[in-house]
Amino acid sequence: MPPSTTSPEALARELDRLLPSGQVSTGGSIRALHGEDLSFHVPCLPDVVVFPRSTSDVVRVLAFSHERRVPIVPFGAGSSLEGHILPVAGGISLDLSGLDSIVAVRQSELTATVQAGVRRLVLDRTLSQHGLFFPVDPGADATLGGMAATNAAGTMTLTYGKMRSRVLALEAVLPTGRVIRTGSRAMKSSAGYDLTGLLVGSEGTLGVITELTLRLAPIPECVHAVRASFPAVSDAAGAAQDLVAGDVGARRIELIDAWEIGALNRFWAGNGRSGPARPPLPERPLLLVEVAGASEAARAALADAVAVLDAHGALEAVQAVTPPECAALWRLRSEVFEAERQVAPGHRSVSTDACVPLGQLGEAIEFTRTAIDRWGLLGGIVSHAGDGNIHTGLLVDPGDTDEMRRLEGYLDELLNDTLARGGTCTGEHGIGLGKREALRREHGDQLDLMWSIKRAFDPHGIMNPGKVLPDDASPSGLPTATSR
Amino acid sequence: MPPSTTSPEALARELDRLLPSGQVSTGGSIRALHGEDLSFHVPCLPDVVVFPRSTSDVVRVLAFSHERRVPIVPFGAGSSLEGHILPVAGGISLDLSGLDSIVAVRQSELTATVQAGVRRLVLDRTLSQHGLFFPVDPGADATLGGMAATNAAGTMTLTYGKMRSRVLALEAVLPTGRVIRTGSRAMKSSAGYDLTGLLVGSEGTLGVITELTLRLAPIPECVHAVRASFPAVSDAAGAAQDLVAGDVGARRIELIDAWEIGALNRFWAGNGRSGPARPPLPERPLLLVEVAGASEAARAALADAVAVLDAHGALEAVQAVTPPECAALWRLRSEVFEAERQVAPGHRSVSTDACVPLGQLGEAIEFTRTAIDRWGLLGGIVSHAGDGNIHTGLLVDPGDTDEMRRLEGYLDELLNDTLARGGTCTGEHGIGLGKREALRREHGDQLDLMWSIKRAFDPHGIMNPGKVLPDDASPSGLPTATSR
Repeated sequence: MPPSTTSPEALARELDRLLPSGQVSTGGSIRALHGEDLSFHVPCLPDVVVFPRSTSDVVRVLAFSHERRVPIVPFGAGSSLEGHILPVAGGISLDLSGLDSIVAVRQSELTATVQAGVRRLVLDRTLSQHGLFFPVDPGADATLGGMAATNAAGTMTLTYGKMRSRVLALEAVLPTGRVIRTGSRAMKSSAGYDLTGLLVGSEGTLGVITELTLRLAPIPECVHAVRASFPAVSDAAGAAQDLVAGDVGARRIELIDAWEIGALNRFWAGNGRSGPARPPLPERPLLLVEVAGASEAARAALADAVAVLDAHGALEAVQAVTPPECAALWRLRSEVFEAERQVAPGHRSVSTDACVPLGQLGEAIEFTRTAIDRWGLLGGIVSHAGDGNIHTGLLVDPGDTDEMRRLEGYLDELLNDTLARGGTCTGEHGIGLGKREALRREHGDQLDLMWSIKRAFDPHGIMNPGKVLPDDASPSGLPTATSR
Repeated sequence: MPPSTTSPEALARELDRLLPSGQVSTGGSIRALHGEDLSFHVPCLPDVVVFPRSTSDVVRVLAFSHERRVPIVPFGAGSSLEGHILPVAGGISLDLSGLDSIVAVRQSELTATVQAGVRRLVLDRTLSQHGLFFPVDPGADATLGGMAATNAAGTMTLTYGKMRSRVLALEAVLPTGRVIRTGSRAMKSSAGYDLTGLLVGSEGTLGVITELTLRLAPIPECVHAVRASFPAVSDAAGAAQDLVAGDVGARRIELIDAWEIGALNRFWAGNGRSGPARPPLPERPLLLVEVAGASEAARAALADAVAVLDAHGALEAVQAVTPPECAALWRLRSEVFEAERQVAPGHRSVSTDACVPLGQLGEAIEFTRTAIDRWGLLGGIVSHAGDGNIHTGLLVDPGDTDEMRRLEGYLDELLNDTLARGGTCTGEHGIGLGKREALRREHGDQLDLMWSIKRAFDPHGIMNPGKVLPDDASPSGLPTATSR
């Protein structure tokens, strides 16, 4: 059957008949909200936004879209950094925020089952009543479904792993409208091919994740933290490596470069800040380290961590022992994003996501810093140093063609360097729209296998077309749904 | 092209011409060694055994077999418990033990790259010189390739995860003779579909893993252990749950039931034992708990663990602080297998592998014990209690048809109970030959997707035919290579 040529309005009417009332919108502002994420990609609009309230609503929409070849773009909180939710081929933006039920919290087995639209902070508020938390923290208040779709990670990956290792089971609706339930509530399984792990990180291109069973962690008795400035990035990176290799029990190790510290200082000094005055930090690379455990173990881990920082020439090490002290210390990490944006208001932020082997961290950050400057770009570096993930936050004006050309040159050079070091183009943000050529460079020998998997799940190519896989790498012309 | 009808001798001659000399054997004893594993499945012989020494040897054999439709069964150490290495369709047993090079140990990034035939204990001897170890310990001295193929786990999964979370990258030869390299040396990646995780656990049905890059762990400064007997299994299981939920830093929690303790006592008292006399243990369920960390943290963790055991009514808690004390304590765990076999010499051992949600552990073990007795079978229970994995070691005489019928009844009942509890039929041993119907019961809604993946990797069905996927679940008659 050829792609439908129905108008957006007719499409909306048909969907409206399929679903309980009030779940379909073609309103301009609603469509605009579903056509833009946190990336620098050019916004584009879906034809229709659908708000399912249940798995069976999703089934109806997918079966319809499959038959009519209408593109479907799953939408969570819109916090993607790689253009995942942009409906580049038009069609339906499927907003899953209405699937917001925490189905079960099972304290004795450290699991919870949630619908895909549940947000991270909502879940953690509920879990805290049980002494538990979900330890994947990507920063944004994303939906759990979105976090699974991109295989999100964040600041605590070192200790707790990323989404793929914390999703035990999931319910997904395939494009044909069929529902599958992968995995189990057991902590581990070797039962057949790992379809759970395949759907996690598939970025909405294989099906729609509607429910997740997550492996939780007990809230530690004590959490302490320390921040330290270093003469050079190589010192800070060396300290991070030794913290990991020395197994001192650090659960977060964040590195912030001198450029970002400068931006923070100016943010605090200017109008941007709220709350009490913040004394400026030394404009040097800074490490933030968090340890956790039972009280005695956490105290010992903090002392061990401080010793490692000192051994690498920490210029200043400020410890935080009580929860308010820790919260104050971590606030600086969460303010980096806002401080960075204040450097060039109105510019778009481009977040890179290289991840290198741990032993390469210092050199990779030095290379990155030099490259940013050499290409005349504006931006700084933050790194989940415990796992080698390096983000550059670059501020660009998409209307400035020379700047965009230089950005492209920088990104290309960064990719070459990352791959030469044995790293990956994306540690946690995913491929989305903008990294498809990077995926070809990194895993070009496997794109046909990935396309075959795509075809098995989504024979008509309706699921999030234009994402993850370069179109021309399809081995035998998989049809891809396009705008009706 | 139809399956080849060449005789084994002609096949051997053709392979011999393809490969450097001395890599092909049709000798009876060699074939017999490659036709039996540690499972209770009936041995069967390959037509030819091939001993590649390099990835390019594997490429040659696979390209040949693909063209000629000859079944290929990858073989590591032969320690499979699920019949993985049995050449049920004849063909070639591909013995990878010659791919035994430790390619690199990268201390600063906590990774090592090894060829697939490297054995676990050989790797750990090398790693110990760098202060590192590889923390997946399935018990047997398996090859790393075999461990990856079955997604092995073992006693330390609670802290360190299983193979799928420790294999960062791999090289695999696909049936067409094509080599792919998945993943990277970075600790995490969101670059495309997770083909690394798909090949891990694929049990030789998608391709031949030839090289692995592994995530290592630093050897902890101190390791302590404690064993405790309990009045009932429910007490021991409750203690295990609280150790996990309390996050006291236990890295191994092993449960051994009273039947196995009885077998151990008789083993030690009889001729089977070697070494110094061992006083008998109370014939009660026993927990073995290991903690690790820097010296102060490890001491604190041991005290916390002992407090949890006491709170659950430990009848006797014996601590082991020094390395020799710990080794002596853990020896009893490793002697269980031998002690069990001595109960009925000449019988085959059947190891079940249910894994249930942690909160179900106590009841699941009680159910299991009752079922063993009700079906009149002989055997005991050991459990990786920290992750809910329950093994029963049953001693059966494959020639006793009544016993085998009762075994089947027991296995069926156990599967029903495990699935009803939200668990999985296999925590770590894999599906292999004997659990294909269990896989259908557990994931029957996904078998066609698994078959589609199989077809994408292995269009002629030459890779380990008859394993993992039930043949009749193939959606459109994938050709399966059969004995020539």
